[in-house]
Amino acid sequence: MPESAVPESAAPESPVSETPGSEAALTVAGLSESELLARIFPRLNRGPEANPTLLLGPGDDAAIVAAPDGRTVVSIDTQVVDQDFRLEWNNGYRTSGYDVGWKAAAQNLSDINAMGARSTSLVVSLTMPPETHVSWVEDFADGLMAGLRGLGAADCAVAGGDLGRGRELAVSVAILGTLDGQDPVLRSGARPGDTVALAGTVGRAAAGLALLEAATSFRALGREQRALMDTQCRPRPPLAAGPLAREAGATAMMDISDGLLRDGNRLAAASQAVLNLDAAALKELTAPLLPASELLGTDPAAWVLGGGEDHGLLATFPAGLRLPPGFTAIGSVEAPAPTESAGVKIAGRPADAVGWDHFAD
Amino acid sequence: MPESAVPESAAPESPVSETPGSEAALTVAGLSESELLARIFPRLNRGPEANPTLLLGPGDDAAIVAAPDGRTVVSIDTQVVDQDFRLEWNNGYRTSGYDVGWKAAAQNLSDINAMGARSTSLVVSLTMPPETHVSWVEDFADGLMAGLRGLGAADCAVAGGDLGRGRELAVSVAILGTLDGQDPVLRSGARPGDTVALAGTVGRAAAGLALLEAATSFRALGREQRALMDTQCRPRPPLAAGPLAREAGATAMMDISDGLLRDGNRLAAASQAVLNLDAAALKELTAPLLPASELLGTDPAAWVLGGGEDHGLLATFPAGLRLPPGFTAIGSVEAPAPTESAGVKIAGRPADAVGWDHFAD
Repeated sequence: MPESAVPESAAPESPVSETPGSEAALTVAGLSESELLARIFPRLNRGPEANPTLLLGPGDDAAIVAAPDGRTVVSIDTQVVDQDFRLEWNNGYRTSGYDVGWKAAAQNLSDINAMGARSTSLVVSLTMPPETHVSWVEDFADGLMAGLRGLGAADCAVAGGDLGRGRELAVSVAILGTLDGQDPVLRSGARPGDTVALAGTVGRAAAGLALLEAATSFRALGREQRALMDTQCRPRPPLAAGPLAREAGATAMMDISDGLLRDGNRLAAASQAVLNLDAAALKELTAPLLPASELLGTDPAAWVLGGGEDHGLLATFPAGLRLPPGFTAIGSVEAPAPTESAGVKIAGRPADAVGWDHFAD
Repeated sequence: MPESAVPESAAPESPVSETPGSEAALTVAGLSESELLARIFPRLNRGPEANPTLLLGPGDDAAIVAAPDGRTVVSIDTQVVDQDFRLEWNNGYRTSGYDVGWKAAAQNLSDINAMGARSTSLVVSLTMPPETHVSWVEDFADGLMAGLRGLGAADCAVAGGDLGRGRELAVSVAILGTLDGQDPVLRSGARPGDTVALAGTVGRAAAGLALLEAATSFRALGREQRALMDTQCRPRPPLAAGPLAREAGATAMMDISDGLLRDGNRLAAASQAVLNLDAAALKELTAPLLPASELLGTDPAAWVLGGGEDHGLLATFPAGLRLPPGFTAIGSVEAPAPTESAGVKIAGRPADAVGWDHFAD
């Protein structure tokens, strides 16, 4: 269980300028790009010893990163204010730059991890309204680095970036990784008879989101509820699990970012298989969410089945294989019946996708 | 001289919905993410023969790209509406999705080129208001691919991406490249006595921007002025020049994206040198801009010295070396005098940076 990063007393500083004049209220409009970079760079990498894969760091037109086995794994992910986070939530909690930086690290690291790979570097593009506090940007850099280190990816360097102005705050991160000479684990390899397993958590970030959107002040919440908010604001994907699963012989794997059902359906479709999830195992996943669901009068199953953003890892393993540390069996892979399409079932019955979709409502 | 891509008659379709109901007015809010992806994917890569470096394409948690010499060159760049382009300009021209896609390709390819490297793949994150036309997104994909092919980077594959919603249209592209076993050309290698040379153009995109922002309808402009607008909307960086310069022994190189003076100062600072630009050579660069400058009553020297976005290539070569095709000598590198700092001079006199800065006004 992660320690809660949600502060006990003061909410983190808002990125929007309130009282001009002081260092704390200095906005990005008050600095040139090079002045802003000069404040960010010292917070990033810690030299060639700490980041041996970074052959040429920020400062030129492009960076150069080692790709020891002649391949680079690559992914990109964007967070936009009021879509992926709110600067101030309904329950009074303010998302800090640190939160956004941490989450950027977490969600990108998770994509590389889900291939069974190891992250080597990332590049960051930050789009900011001119009134964004410089301290918010510094917090962002600190949160990004803390996320890399705290999640076990201290080797992953910030190779470069781009700072720009926009009306809304947004951050795009592209991340590179290495498979260290091994085969990747794809979504398409699940075979009938395989065990379906989960590493990390599901539903906690969705429960945290529900608490953030609720009317009850975050200050009134107990430690357990704050930890759920923390999973939403600073997720902790199980980064060791990806390469461990690959080594153990996982047949398919993916990051759960849009919910167990939606992402499970994607893995099932890629593998032309049915993932039959075990009702008892799912019920067990709802147990830690019961206090929050009682508080909010919500069905915790919806969080477990539809909630993304914990960045748990869904994988399939050959039957009878001892699951690697961190994985729990939650079902089995079946061949679709002749008239049936690939997808997720629960206890043998088709489950509808209820995960988040960015466009269709 | 590039052929003008600015249409003669009808302006490209606006991304904002006007008449609902028809296919042309279909917006991204009307499609799920997978439906939208299904419209984009067929417009992208053309299979393993066309893109041999793309080992695993879009559709999994991350893509896999070949890095033949064990290194990957990487950069990221973002365009945001009303910062980097306008959907409708003052002169009536409407930026199409095709324009934005082309420009995304061009500016990112140029960063890899400026290292003396070759682009192998890119990942794209597109943030869109829900009312964005699906046809605009399709145009964007077409423009991106046309940019890759039209600029000589047909090998460069779209490895993956991210689609998301936001209040303002923005596109982030991270691009990967290979040095094919060669050393990169950095900003820091210029030595006293070297020749300063330019490939591609400077000032054209700035002149085009001035025309776009002017009151005169773009329909009233002649072919030459439209070609300047085209350099702003669909820049054509000299992609062959980067690897040629590296092979020829360029000592330093960079992409001119923020203006000859500003970027020249960066190269000079990285090399601890003075770039002494030749006044006659600069004057020659202003010549093709005279008709536009007369039309607008503007000093063309400001465009040549301060205008970015043509993505010309600034490089230094050992004295006496025959410049590679596409490069023109525009000055020479000198050691700073004892009391002098590194920077750009014109005909021996310090030049002030007048290039665009994203934050300081």
